[in-house]
Amino acid sequence: MTDVTLHDTLCALTLTLVLTGPRMVLNTRPLITTPLIPYPMALIVQKYGGTSVGSVERIGAVADRVARFKSEGHDMVVVVSAMSGETNRLMGLAKEIQKNPAPRELDALLSTGEKVTTALLSMALGERAVRAKSFSANQVGILTDSAHNKARIQDIRAEALQAELEVGGVPVVAGFQGVDVQGNVTTLGRGGSDTTAVALAAALKADECQIYTDVDGVYTTDPRMVDGAKRLDQITFEEMLEMSSMGSKVLQIRSVEFAGKYKVPLRVLSSFEGGPGTLITTEEDTSMEAPVIAGIAFNRDEAKLTVVGVPDNPGIAYRILGPVGEANIEVDVILQNSRGENSTDFTFTVARGDMEAAAEVLTPVVTELGAGEVLTDDHIAKVSVVGVGMRSHSGVAATMFKALADVGVNIQMISTSEIKISVIIEEKFLELAVRSLHSAFGLDTVED
Amino acid sequence: MTDVTLHDTLCALTLTLVLTGPRMVLNTRPLITTPLIPYPMALIVQKYGGTSVGSVERIGAVADRVARFKSEGHDMVVVVSAMSGETNRLMGLAKEIQKNPAPRELDALLSTGEKVTTALLSMALGERAVRAKSFSANQVGILTDSAHNKARIQDIRAEALQAELEVGGVPVVAGFQGVDVQGNVTTLGRGGSDTTAVALAAALKADECQIYTDVDGVYTTDPRMVDGAKRLDQITFEEMLEMSSMGSKVLQIRSVEFAGKYKVPLRVLSSFEGGPGTLITTEEDTSMEAPVIAGIAFNRDEAKLTVVGVPDNPGIAYRILGPVGEANIEVDVILQNSRGENSTDFTFTVARGDMEAAAEVLTPVVTELGAGEVLTDDHIAKVSVVGVGMRSHSGVAATMFKALADVGVNIQMISTSEIKISVIIEEKFLELAVRSLHSAFGLDTVED
Repeated sequence: MTDVTLHDTLCALTLTLVLTGPRMVLNTRPLITTPLIPYPMALIVQKYGGTSVGSVERIGAVADRVARFKSEGHDMVVVVSAMSGETNRLMGLAKEIQKNPAPRELDALLSTGEKVTTALLSMALGERAVRAKSFSANQVGILTDSAHNKARIQDIRAEALQAELEVGGVPVVAGFQGVDVQGNVTTLGRGGSDTTAVALAAALKADECQIYTDVDGVYTTDPRMVDGAKRLDQITFEEMLEMSSMGSKVLQIRSVEFAGKYKVPLRVLSSFEGGPGTLITTEEDTSMEAPVIAGIAFNRDEAKLTVVGVPDNPGIAYRILGPVGEANIEVDVILQNSRGENSTDFTFTVARGDMEAAAEVLTPVVTELGAGEVLTDDHIAKVSVVGVGMRSHSGVAATMFKALADVGVNIQMISTSEIKISVIIEEKFLELAVRSLHSAFGLDTVED
Repeated sequence: MTDVTLHDTLCALTLTLVLTGPRMVLNTRPLITTPLIPYPMALIVQKYGGTSVGSVERIGAVADRVARFKSEGHDMVVVVSAMSGETNRLMGLAKEIQKNPAPRELDALLSTGEKVTTALLSMALGERAVRAKSFSANQVGILTDSAHNKARIQDIRAEALQAELEVGGVPVVAGFQGVDVQGNVTTLGRGGSDTTAVALAAALKADECQIYTDVDGVYTTDPRMVDGAKRLDQITFEEMLEMSSMGSKVLQIRSVEFAGKYKVPLRVLSSFEGGPGTLITTEEDTSMEAPVIAGIAFNRDEAKLTVVGVPDNPGIAYRILGPVGEANIEVDVILQNSRGENSTDFTFTVARGDMEAAAEVLTPVVTELGAGEVLTDDHIAKVSVVGVGMRSHSGVAATMFKALADVGVNIQMISTSEIKISVIIEEKFLELAVRSLHSAFGLDTVED
């Protein structure tokens, strides 16, 4: 990988990443099998989040797992977050001193949290007779731009890690952070440790990047809503992105895009239970029984704005959405249905917290355009069926719409992509819609 | 300063440094004057210990003081320790994981404490409109050897700090730590932040290095023992070393030696009160009233071992003290008084905690030498009078012995250096001896 390619990719990612509110399709279930070790003598990057290293005992459990993988002949690199609570403690100190802490100093401050974990885990591994060595971002050579608090990785110098692997050691790397060319410490922003792990896996050409978290994989839908929801053995990057863009607590969308770009097999698994988790891969599940649809995603954090009676001229979409974008409001679904008359209605959705601000931004625009009024509705939700299988299977949309019609759910807006169909419906029908679709696409587990 | 010179010096220091138990000659007294600022437009390095930065409020108070110095036109560099309690917290975590934490990882762990303080103080300065920037040892370029937990500074690259000073900024530097040539984080061991401050002052050719602590200066003796003890306005490096070698909570002997070597004026002052503190300097106080003796130091942490009936042959001292040194036991006062007969007694003192171990080490030696027995006594104490003035004044020893005789204190051992006379006495006479000597050398304050 060259600097230029990686840098360009990350810049491109920066522009395309939009996260709307959180709505997860992942959850835990007890599974009493040992972790899947799919490769003999592989190079595996494991990432452990704050909860997984939240106490001395849990750090010990992580060390036990790493030692087991190592004893089975694998080369291991471990990426860790700060112990849970530590980042909040440091942030609390900073905010007591400065309401808006200086970005450079905030990075210098927060980056200490992961360094603490790397040292403690290295000690715990040493205690288990595993040769281990902590690495700060500076010691690895994780070069980022200088955008403090939200830096982007530009290059990773893998030599120091490779040297440690060659002598049989386990490098324990601080996630979430980097250094810029001037030597300033930077942080990668929310979910940055996932990105660190994937970037290291790409740079080291690892066989697999395992993200340990408090859920045991990706589910066909939220098991809290649908009893029959089941864990997916595997899912494609594209599907995961469409599931994630609905919001996910578990995998930062940025790390999934990154893994997809560099074809790093990515596995989500539980730090507290056994089980193979869910493998996110470039390869579509082509087995006979593979369902067309991978899962049903949904999002309650949606609100709808409709500009009524807009003159049907070119450039209208830009004149309405331009000011909304300038106000840093992310737009999700957009619908413009020209009726071939002089005026039309223009509808779009935003996160609920942004609805009032968006309406305010549009007030002068409506006057300027000579449009009617702005209608708002925050009692809506979005439901999506996601699956790469729909590329080769017709009738997915028909199945979806029939299932919703059968239970009397009215569709307000429809939006489609190559592997996803989303509908906006009244919020009170959300659970009904998700359950119906889960069943209609054959996703329910046998035992339910 | 070249690498070689500095390195050689520090290596030499390593060999000569011996710290016996703590017994301080420093204490606080209320003084309601503003801090002394002795130079117009000076470059001042200030060091604040853990207690001085132990809370958000105290960090704010430090920022207030730095801002005041800055507003008066001084160039400022600040060195900070970890917030009080933080190092113990981290050490506690480490010890839960490993009984003897791996030295490299312990350094990686503990060094985060100072980094936290640098970021928080930089924020506090920013909040007061003072341009400030945190620096880790790596960012400064504080190069040490690779002796983890007790590393020695080999070189300081001052360019980054100088660049920051040139643009009017205040560098806030993490004390206690460095990096070795491989980029491993090291720590300087106990009192290391003082050493960092003095080394930076030397490298930057600062006008003064100010060590802020919880005492307001160096006293003629411990004010808890002698009411009339008074703060010294100034003291020479040599005197301070002799006072410190009795043990001092405040200034690490290593930093004093370092400051003396590079002629960095060093000032000890209180972080919580005003007052000029005590200036440690190369220049002797030559004013008419300057007393011959700077102070009375003492140490209770002494125990005596006497090997009775040693054959009076060459090499006896080595054959006795060699095994003691190999057992990592530091020897303080040594007395061999040959009576011109076939056998003699050999006496030396060690820290009390080492007495049993030393006696055990000597058991086979005594047999081998054909000596009598080993007598031990841990009810002794050491009292010293210290002062460069005794070089040019005769009669100091006579005054000392007369003062002790006058109050009936018997002297067991005597040891002299160019600027110090120490006696070993029975411990129960310690307070009486110190008070008598303080008075006999005219050190009592007028008001007493």
